[in-house]
Amino acid sequence: MAHLLGGLAAPFLCKSISASSSSNYNYTSASSFDSLYIKRAAELADKSAGFTAPHPNFGCVIAAPNGGGTVVGEGYLYAEGTIPAEVQAVEAAGEQCRGATAYLNMEPGDCHCDNSAVYALIKAEISRVVVGIRHPLQHLRGNAIHALRSEGLQVDVLGEDAQNKTIEDAIKSCLLVNAPLLYRAACQVPFSVLKYAMTLDGKIAASSGHASWISSKKSRTRVFEMRGRSDAVIVGGNTVRKDNPRLTVRHGGDHLPRRIVLSQTLDLPEEAHLWNVSEVPTIVATQRGARRSFQRLLASKGVEVVEFDILDPRDVMGYLYDRGYLSVLWECGGTLAASAISSGVIHKVHAFVAPKIIGGKNAPSPVGELGMVEMTQALELIDVCYEQV
Amino acid sequence: MAHLLGGLAAPFLCKSISASSSSNYNYTSASSFDSLYIKRAAELADKSAGFTAPHPNFGCVIAAPNGGGTVVGEGYLYAEGTIPAEVQAVEAAGEQCRGATAYLNMEPGDCHCDNSAVYALIKAEISRVVVGIRHPLQHLRGNAIHALRSEGLQVDVLGEDAQNKTIEDAIKSCLLVNAPLLYRAACQVPFSVLKYAMTLDGKIAASSGHASWISSKKSRTRVFEMRGRSDAVIVGGNTVRKDNPRLTVRHGGDHLPRRIVLSQTLDLPEEAHLWNVSEVPTIVATQRGARRSFQRLLASKGVEVVEFDILDPRDVMGYLYDRGYLSVLWECGGTLAASAISSGVIHKVHAFVAPKIIGGKNAPSPVGELGMVEMTQALELIDVCYEQV
Repeated sequence: MAHLLGGLAAPFLCKSISASSSSNYNYTSASSFDSLYIKRAAELADKSAGFTAPHPNFGCVIAAPNGGGTVVGEGYLYAEGTIPAEVQAVEAAGEQCRGATAYLNMEPGDCHCDNSAVYALIKAEISRVVVGIRHPLQHLRGNAIHALRSEGLQVDVLGEDAQNKTIEDAIKSCLLVNAPLLYRAACQVPFSVLKYAMTLDGKIAASSGHASWISSKKSRTRVFEMRGRSDAVIVGGNTVRKDNPRLTVRHGGDHLPRRIVLSQTLDLPEEAHLWNVSEVPTIVATQRGARRSFQRLLASKGVEVVEFDILDPRDVMGYLYDRGYLSVLWECGGTLAASAISSGVIHKVHAFVAPKIIGGKNAPSPVGELGMVEMTQALELIDVCYEQV
Repeated sequence: MAHLLGGLAAPFLCKSISASSSSNYNYTSASSFDSLYIKRAAELADKSAGFTAPHPNFGCVIAAPNGGGTVVGEGYLYAEGTIPAEVQAVEAAGEQCRGATAYLNMEPGDCHCDNSAVYALIKAEISRVVVGIRHPLQHLRGNAIHALRSEGLQVDVLGEDAQNKTIEDAIKSCLLVNAPLLYRAACQVPFSVLKYAMTLDGKIAASSGHASWISSKKSRTRVFEMRGRSDAVIVGGNTVRKDNPRLTVRHGGDHLPRRIVLSQTLDLPEEAHLWNVSEVPTIVATQRGARRSFQRLLASKGVEVVEFDILDPRDVMGYLYDRGYLSVLWECGGTLAASAISSGVIHKVHAFVAPKIIGGKNAPSPVGELGMVEMTQALELIDVCYEQV
């Protein structure tokens, strides 16, 4: 089972985001602690991937000024509305904050109404703050750094232009953990990943439509993890009709993404696992006026129905952006996948390739019609990586 | 570009081949030289892969009895009818053969009419011979070992049951270099590899049939190497009509495999690169009585036409077996690939997966109809390995 991941959209966007202000960056003296602890802050931030939308993921590490930079406090944002990472870390470190250095994977998004992170660092008498990357949202960008500097704290931004491989790695961790926010900020749609599992001969099901299971148990566990990191999972009507999926995550404690069904006609079964919303909500996006009686049936089960003038992946993504979604996972079949790719809303592709041959002249494949005639028109993926699962 | 390789047929067959006589094996004392030089012998043998059919690939290393086992002579069989590896190595080592150890990746296939390899070792006063694996053909198996022992030489067979990881690796090299012979001996057909290049969404061409180029330049170089190691390359009529391939290898000096076209109807173009046989022969396999006039046209161009009562991949492979072919490479489209898989003649699959998305509802995929309805019926590949090209 190979796990292949490649980006379809523009390359990782942070360079363009940072370009305008890069001359303002203060580079820290090449301390290996800086890279180490910024990486750790990113690692902490990643623990709550999926839980924090619309906020990004924050982690904070506090290292004592003496004793070789011993870590004296750590924290990360659990979920929206919980205690900020910096406040938790400061509380954990207590008295040892005085003169210490705080490491943040990303500049805090403090605004005038809530500057608790900045305030906590100042009050605790932290003397230096190292920030992995600046906040990508224009109205927040630089605010926290400015506030800290005004109070006399030294603030170093590792920035996006790495001085060496170690710092580059640390920054990459910061970019990766908040990739959803970075893509969202740059593209005005949630970060979108297309995920599919196919056989080595490029089929996502047998000719009959039977698809259980293409991928190994281990790969399916990976899919649960991917769902847990997403704010929503999207499927089309075909998938509901043929597979009747649950789109849940296997183990308790994980974040449960909302389930979203795109269906123009609402030609959907009256009973389906997705209509059970006792654990997690389901949203059905459809064309205005489609099968009103069925819409009422769904509503009676607690399923939210959203009508669009024309049901198009880009409009749906715009809508999910407005609702504050950071990242969505497309687990749809070939037709909807082709439509999403054509609409330009897919940023990354995760393909699980199973070492199996199923054959089938009419067996479905992962991406439907894109209207391409020459092989040279094919969309080339960038930043490709492979892994054997 | 990922390069995925997996076996479709029974696992590597040598264990079953050797089972009956494994109790007779003499294991050498665990000398790390043994593994090292057997591996080197296999490496030498591999240099002429593709050139030696119907003979397998032989390599020989002679190490001096003193001086820490210094290599004093090496040799490998270049091609059918050339000087045996052992004779070359003995000639290179000269006087230093006396009391030395000879390492052979495989037991020589000497028969009564030609025992030059055995004779050379005896005459040179080699005192010990280490053999990687025994000869897989029943009528030759053990003959050379017996002859050497009769003359008082010590013969150790590393055998197939490895005592440790290093010996296991060395034996694996020996098995790999002569895999075509081992498969051929076990299955009574040439060793068959199905090779294809597809996009990440499982297409071998755009909807129009346009396929140039799915794979990277580096991958295509790998294909040239694969062809160079094969005795024949097989395509179907579709490939001739649509792609008009040459099926050559890029650089001079390589072995040129015969080109074989399978076509029931002989509905083929009058002009095609494959009908130019000035450099390498082409064989067209067809159904008895098909388009006799076209058969005559092909014959006039020097193309060999072979008629079968019913054109079936298994019968064609049986015919190629009788002609002494060790290994063939299937570079056909989905329809013929499905037919070859269904006939049970494909032993290995090499898939090149390009990080591209082409889409296309009617774009062809690598394997056509196999009649499988449930995903659980899919053929599972074994010994799978992945590589990023």
